[in-house]
Amino acid sequence: MALKVVIIGGGSSYTPEIMEGFLKRYEQFPVTDIVLVDVKAGEEKVKIVTALAKRMVLKAGKDIRVSYTFNRKEALQGADFVTTQIRVGGLQARAYDERIPLKHGMIGQETNGAGGIMKAFRTIPVMLEIAQEMHEICPDAWLINFTNPAGIVTEAVMNHSPFKNVIGVCNIPFNMRSGVGELFQVPAERVMIEFVGLNHFVFGRKVYIDGVDRTAEAMHHLIYDDVDYSPANIVALPWNKQFLKTLNMLPNPYHQYYFQHEQVLKKDVEAYQTNVTRAEVVMEVEEALFKKYQSPNLDVKPEELEQRGGAYYSEAACNVMTSIYNNSMDVQTVNTLNNGTITDLPADCVIEVNSVITASGPMPLSIGNLPAVISGAIVQMKQYERLVVEAAVTGDYSKAYAAMIMNPLVTSDDKAQVVLDELLHVHQSNLPQFSKEVVKQ
Amino acid sequence: MALKVVIIGGGSSYTPEIMEGFLKRYEQFPVTDIVLVDVKAGEEKVKIVTALAKRMVLKAGKDIRVSYTFNRKEALQGADFVTTQIRVGGLQARAYDERIPLKHGMIGQETNGAGGIMKAFRTIPVMLEIAQEMHEICPDAWLINFTNPAGIVTEAVMNHSPFKNVIGVCNIPFNMRSGVGELFQVPAERVMIEFVGLNHFVFGRKVYIDGVDRTAEAMHHLIYDDVDYSPANIVALPWNKQFLKTLNMLPNPYHQYYFQHEQVLKKDVEAYQTNVTRAEVVMEVEEALFKKYQSPNLDVKPEELEQRGGAYYSEAACNVMTSIYNNSMDVQTVNTLNNGTITDLPADCVIEVNSVITASGPMPLSIGNLPAVISGAIVQMKQYERLVVEAAVTGDYSKAYAAMIMNPLVTSDDKAQVVLDELLHVHQSNLPQFSKEVVKQ
Amino acid sequence: MALKVVIIGGGSSYTPEIMEGFLKRYEQFPVTDIVLVDVKAGEEKVKIVTALAKRMVLKAGKDIRVSYTFNRKEALQGADFVTTQIRVGGLQARAYDERIPLKHGMIGQETNGAGGIMKAFRTIPVMLEIAQEMHEICPDAWLINFTNPAGIVTEAVMNHSPFKNVIGVCNIPFNMRSGVGELFQVPAERVMIEFVGLNHFVFGRKVYIDGVDRTAEAMHHLIYDDVDYSPANIVALPWNKQFLKTLNMLPNPYHQYYFQHEQVLKKDVEAYQTNVTRAEVVMEVEEALFKKYQSPNLDVKPEELEQRGGAYYSEAACNVMTSIYNNSMDVQTVNTLNNGTITDLPADCVIEVNSVITASGPMPLSIGNLPAVISGAIVQMKQYERLVVEAAVTGDYSKAYAAMIMNPLVTSDDKAQVVLDELLHVHQSNLPQFSKEVVKQ
Amino acid sequence: MALKVVIIGGGSSYTPEIMEGFLKRYEQFPVTDIVLVDVKAGEEKVKIVTALAKRMVLKAGKDIRVSYTFNRKEALQGADFVTTQIRVGGLQARAYDERIPLKHGMIGQETNGAGGIMKAFRTIPVMLEIAQEMHEICPDAWLINFTNPAGIVTEAVMNHSPFKNVIGVCNIPFNMRSGVGELFQVPAERVMIEFVGLNHFVFGRKVYIDGVDRTAEAMHHLIYDDVDYSPANIVALPWNKQFLKTLNMLPNPYHQYYFQHEQVLKKDVEAYQTNVTRAEVVMEVEEALFKKYQSPNLDVKPEELEQRGGAYYSEAACNVMTSIYNNSMDVQTVNTLNNGTITDLPADCVIEVNSVITASGPMPLSIGNLPAVISGAIVQMKQYERLVVEAAVTGDYSKAYAAMIMNPLVTSDDKAQVVLDELLHVHQSNLPQFSKEVVKQ
Repeated sequence: MALKVVIIGGGSSYTPEIMEGFLKRYEQFPVTDIVLVDVKAGEEKVKIVTALAKRMVLKAGKDIRVSYTFNRKEALQGADFVTTQIRVGGLQARAYDERIPLKHGMIGQETNGAGGIMKAFRTIPVMLEIAQEMHEICPDAWLINFTNPAGIVTEAVMNHSPFKNVIGVCNIPFNMRSGVGELFQVPAERVMIEFVGLNHFVFGRKVYIDGVDRTAEAMHHLIYDDVDYSPANIVALPWNKQFLKTLNMLPNPYHQYYFQHEQVLKKDVEAYQTNVTRAEVVMEVEEALFKKYQSPNLDVKPEELEQRGGAYYSEAACNVMTSIYNNSMDVQTVNTLNNGTITDLPADCVIEVNSVITASGPMPLSIGNLPAVISGAIVQMKQYERLVVEAAVTGDYSKAYAAMIMNPLVTSDDKAQVVLDELLHVHQSNLPQFSKEVVKQ
Repeated sequence: MALKVVIIGGGSSYTPEIMEGFLKRYEQFPVTDIVLVDVKAGEEKVKIVTALAKRMVLKAGKDIRVSYTFNRKEALQGADFVTTQIRVGGLQARAYDERIPLKHGMIGQETNGAGGIMKAFRTIPVMLEIAQEMHEICPDAWLINFTNPAGIVTEAVMNHSPFKNVIGVCNIPFNMRSGVGELFQVPAERVMIEFVGLNHFVFGRKVYIDGVDRTAEAMHHLIYDDVDYSPANIVALPWNKQFLKTLNMLPNPYHQYYFQHEQVLKKDVEAYQTNVTRAEVVMEVEEALFKKYQSPNLDVKPEELEQRGGAYYSEAACNVMTSIYNNSMDVQTVNTLNNGTITDLPADCVIEVNSVITASGPMPLSIGNLPAVISGAIVQMKQYERLVVEAAVTGDYSKAYAAMIMNPLVTSDDKAQVVLDELLHVHQSNLPQFSKEVVKQ
Repeated sequence: MALKVVIIGGGSSYTPEIMEGFLKRYEQFPVTDIVLVDVKAGEEKVKIVTALAKRMVLKAGKDIRVSYTFNRKEALQGADFVTTQIRVGGLQARAYDERIPLKHGMIGQETNGAGGIMKAFRTIPVMLEIAQEMHEICPDAWLINFTNPAGIVTEAVMNHSPFKNVIGVCNIPFNMRSGVGELFQVPAERVMIEFVGLNHFVFGRKVYIDGVDRTAEAMHHLIYDDVDYSPANIVALPWNKQFLKTLNMLPNPYHQYYFQHEQVLKKDVEAYQTNVTRAEVVMEVEEALFKKYQSPNLDVKPEELEQRGGAYYSEAACNVMTSIYNNSMDVQTVNTLNNGTITDLPADCVIEVNSVITASGPMPLSIGNLPAVISGAIVQMKQYERLVVEAAVTGDYSKAYAAMIMNPLVTSDDKAQVVLDELLHVHQSNLPQFSKEVVKQ
Repeated sequence: MALKVVIIGGGSSYTPEIMEGFLKRYEQFPVTDIVLVDVKAGEEKVKIVTALAKRMVLKAGKDIRVSYTFNRKEALQGADFVTTQIRVGGLQARAYDERIPLKHGMIGQETNGAGGIMKAFRTIPVMLEIAQEMHEICPDAWLINFTNPAGIVTEAVMNHSPFKNVIGVCNIPFNMRSGVGELFQVPAERVMIEFVGLNHFVFGRKVYIDGVDRTAEAMHHLIYDDVDYSPANIVALPWNKQFLKTLNMLPNPYHQYYFQHEQVLKKDVEAYQTNVTRAEVVMEVEEALFKKYQSPNLDVKPEELEQRGGAYYSEAACNVMTSIYNNSMDVQTVNTLNNGTITDLPADCVIEVNSVITASGPMPLSIGNLPAVISGAIVQMKQYERLVVEAAVTGDYSKAYAAMIMNPLVTSDDKAQVVLDELLHVHQSNLPQFSKEVVKQ
């Protein structure tokens, strides 16, 4: 029986990781066809990656057809699962997202602040197109999105397309479980964290080892043992101990942008001034990776990829696909519709939440009210995210400004406008929803 | 390692069933000690049941110590799980609950209508005592309640005792899954029903077979194939086909009391007039059962017990205990705290809901808003239940009247008072919370 | 400056009352034009009423043009206020609404039970037409609806037409204030009741005299002094004293249908059997009234009208119009959008609530949570009302059945269908939204 | 008949303004006794103010007894209204609140940021004492609080004292109405603004002139006509035009701290560096005022007082007292219990809202959901305020840190601690709730 997976943005340097994931899980998830889809501009990369993927399959001795195409609609025929790892505008766009805000003294990370807003603006129209095509071509397939900002992008698809089989995944929850596992010296599989919140703004309210609540010990370790579960792609500053005591929950690495705003800004401005913001670093890493990928002797995922930043993204994606396929009913952390799971947030928003994964998709475990200390921050973050989605979908300048000014990392009404205008201008070609007039200047 | 289970109301005719449950699950749930607790008045019965239980253990060749006691506190020492299958006032009390309302032309079933109110009034004080003792003696043990009205009783413990490790179980959800399994000719294990609502007022919103949504087919079967999943202890009338079409969800057998009020009332009044209300029937069944239990050759659960009415109650209880013990994280249907799971109901109420069963107890799957067609009925039922709990806990006559008049089966302000007064009077000795003055007349 | 009022259903026997209302308020509400609109079939009546209205104006010596027309659109040109007092199908339809349910042992009052459902089904399509016309012809005018079931009809217009300037009024709140005024021997103007709930299902939570909370005294009077503030058109049974004590709020006369269901049903069945349901009574009253109205010497509202049942309806309507006209910002009780006023009810439903009346319409005073004892009943009633609106707007048979079975006065799934089918059949010509097929039989 | 007003903090320089308010309203609010209460340390000031107040009464020719005392409990005997205008720690404390945060590069205004937190910490214990005394001595009197942060202080009293007759007032809503009145060239009395939000974080969602919605014009004026309705005590920066367009509501002057964070911080840091933060300015103004007050020829409120900053505070207070006294039922903007008025906020929090003022206190006009664009910000602000109250009441250091880190003007986990510790230290003597240990260092 055929089991077909389509990887949109298949020419990404991450692809070998997801390939490894499929090979590891072949018994439970006997994939027969993998199609890498990319844009013509990425032809060279997708060819390199496809060749490597084929070598990996050969080495593993599995019966999987691997191919690439520039024709997305064709690829979607008969698809069972579709993953998206696209970067609209490429790393150059990322560089703008990071550098323009920093020029004006604002944080511009690719999922937070003005940068995250822009990435959403560029990504959402493309994702809505993909969702529409899936609705028409493979309506029962599942779309597993790990393009950032993953929560916002997933919400846009959920609320603005007829296609509802979409799930957002992120490596942070898995990283946090692994980190906690190290603290307790148990494998991540025995760790359950009750995640509460939003993608990149999720907190770990409870820590269970084998189902037993060990939150207090986990917090003690975190405060006194200097754990770090930050992914490679963001800075990692130590937390103030009192912050952790007061929070009494696990923060995630991205919380630094908000609760260590000053320190991160300082660090990022320095990076900006010395020309080494994240985009520049990644560009170099990518170049090296693709050089490596071309080696005809390479037939496994190279170790260097783990330093790329998004390690375990594809782990999360493969786990979800496998459990849907098998109706496993295990608990995984995904981005899906809130629908009352967190009572403080709108029913139709997307949250990051532990869910039972079934053949009909994720069924979230109820959370109830947000913990008091973080409820205001999470509600505000979600409200900001909704403004982003609304602006991304409508191309309305006033809503785009609303998203800017309500972002907690934006601290001036005037600069909000200056930075927004500059960003809309440089990204013009990837923002079809915003009229020329708006982005001209 | 010891694994101790205490069965309160151990002299019940149901005990052989739960014994069978333990023996079947011995590999996963290696119980070492089973203590049957009962009141001195039930000495004869508890002795008979203990002897039978011992014979069952011997036959099965397991290493389980079985004993009985009248000293509840002593029994609770070192307990891991406690189940309650008590009937305060015995079957005579049930007879009053059924007959006095019927005398005045009102339904008086043991979980619905005036009868259910009274059973709650008698049971809740005893359950709060047990919970208090567990809080002091075995605070980490789990209380698995299947005394009716199970949802109301569980809510009373949850909100009015310091002990929170309480779970209510009922056989109805399991019966419904079995019934649906028969429709699709698959074992109940492959059936998942999304249960929405309250104990004895739960609806099946979605039917999944192997995780795939088959609700439409299930409804079609139900409408045209005349399925019956009613337990033996309640009447079973056929549903109006349009009712099922409009509902588009699985009703549960107890819904007859509300949506076939007239027909059930007529049937019950006839039973009353011919002296064969349920209590009378059960008295006879019980007598026969205990005669059988005494036979020294009997060393298994006798088949007749299945006709007793509560079949599968202990199945549900054993499943919950086994999954807690093993942190199995499978999905079971239990009565637990709402905490936002159903957004239309108060956070601190108890609902009947699919939950992941962990070593830390049940984690409900989020439901969100109630389906429009039944939301009013469920909200009203829960509000009524809360009035019952409040009256049961305070012994306040005015609140007891509130519970009566807000019960959908009570249709007259005057009769509400007459029936309430008569019932308080006959049950006086089992209602310590109501002052003499209130119940005198 | 012109101030034009259009009275739809102007040939109603109530018109002299509203005429009197305008004449009394002429200084504050200097109406210049009153147009009575009716259907051609009511020509005789509307002519009689118009003539009487003219004589009343003449006697009062005011400068008001009174006219009638069968052309509603023409009448709406330049209108400032439009009132509706229509009865689709006339009193014959009412007779069916009352008698068919009673034939099957069910209450069939014109705003409660199956009768109320049918009246809503007949009225809503006409009201939506009127609202649509106002939207096009006089979008800034106000529609003051007092056609029953007033709350349901107002909700239908609010949610299913583009025209939002609609306010529902009822005489019950005013009757209740007058009744309380009598208890305290003060004029109704000094009484404020905090009304909580829905039209014909509203409770008086607090009673203020001159702004001072006197609820306890009011309840004491009500319990021990046998007050009656029932309008003439419904039965008036005494309340059980314990009911009032437990409620600790003022019930309204229509609550009898629910909390004295048995007694009212008995009384209504007797009336049915002796052929004197309300419709028959009203037919006689109407005939006598119109005979009187024709007298050329009559130039004031005849006293007999007060016995007609709806006394003070027009009082309520005139008060609202006068306060809107003057931006008076006084507090009146109207049916308007909930919008969070009662947090237990949907934002987009219509409630009966104290509101500050401004030139921009009513601004409700916040209520918050419903009182526990009645919250279940009110939520259920509103949910039922929403099912009625949905069925009335869509003509969907299954939704019509849903409204029937969820009505608290309907107590059998089978009878719900029988009664629904008979009613749909007899009213067929006034139910264009229900397809022939549905109502055939 | 006696009508007694007690002014706590009576020695304040504001007292002549409230005296003027009483004299202006004497016909509607015939006060007979005014008692100024202050602490012994303020003896000189309260004597000066009392003497001036007496001269004002004499000049006006009214029959009002004015006196002062240091015995608060005695003063409260027979009180009808109590106002509070206290400043715990005096202007020196304010200087700390402003300067310590600024030293670390953080805004430290007296109602916003770290400064506002500290002012709440000092004020709340005293207010709870006053409330407790009123509960015992004059339980039917009304406490009209205008001590800042007025919303937070009012919420603390509402939720942590048995005394519920408390109302918070602020001059900002009145200033905004006046400002809008100027735009439309009508008196403030004809302006109604629908205020939505919290004290010092309130927005004007709708603008009505004579009850007619004129919001669009008001926004146009605001954007293009450069209106300013800032009080004298805070900086007044021009708003970015796009900010106003996107907001499409009236901001209040304090919103600058949040949406012009950078600009305000820059300005305040400059002031700090040149030693002219607000406390210093006020100290000088106060000195000049008291010099003036001593003049035996002064028998009216001196004009200079209007420049003091809090102009119209007492106007708001006098209006509320007059309407309660007369059960006027007019609409005023006050700080009172939310109770569902804003559905996004907790029922038991205090909001700033238009309310009908009755003899039983304010009855808020329903608001419903917050407008999307500001809902996140308001929810977060309220959540922060609740953390402040909790810390102020418990003296819990961890909660105090929570309030700091969740304040939108605090942008570093480390600095949050440094600034908190320094402030707790310097204010030690006025923070009895925080243990010595906590504030030592």
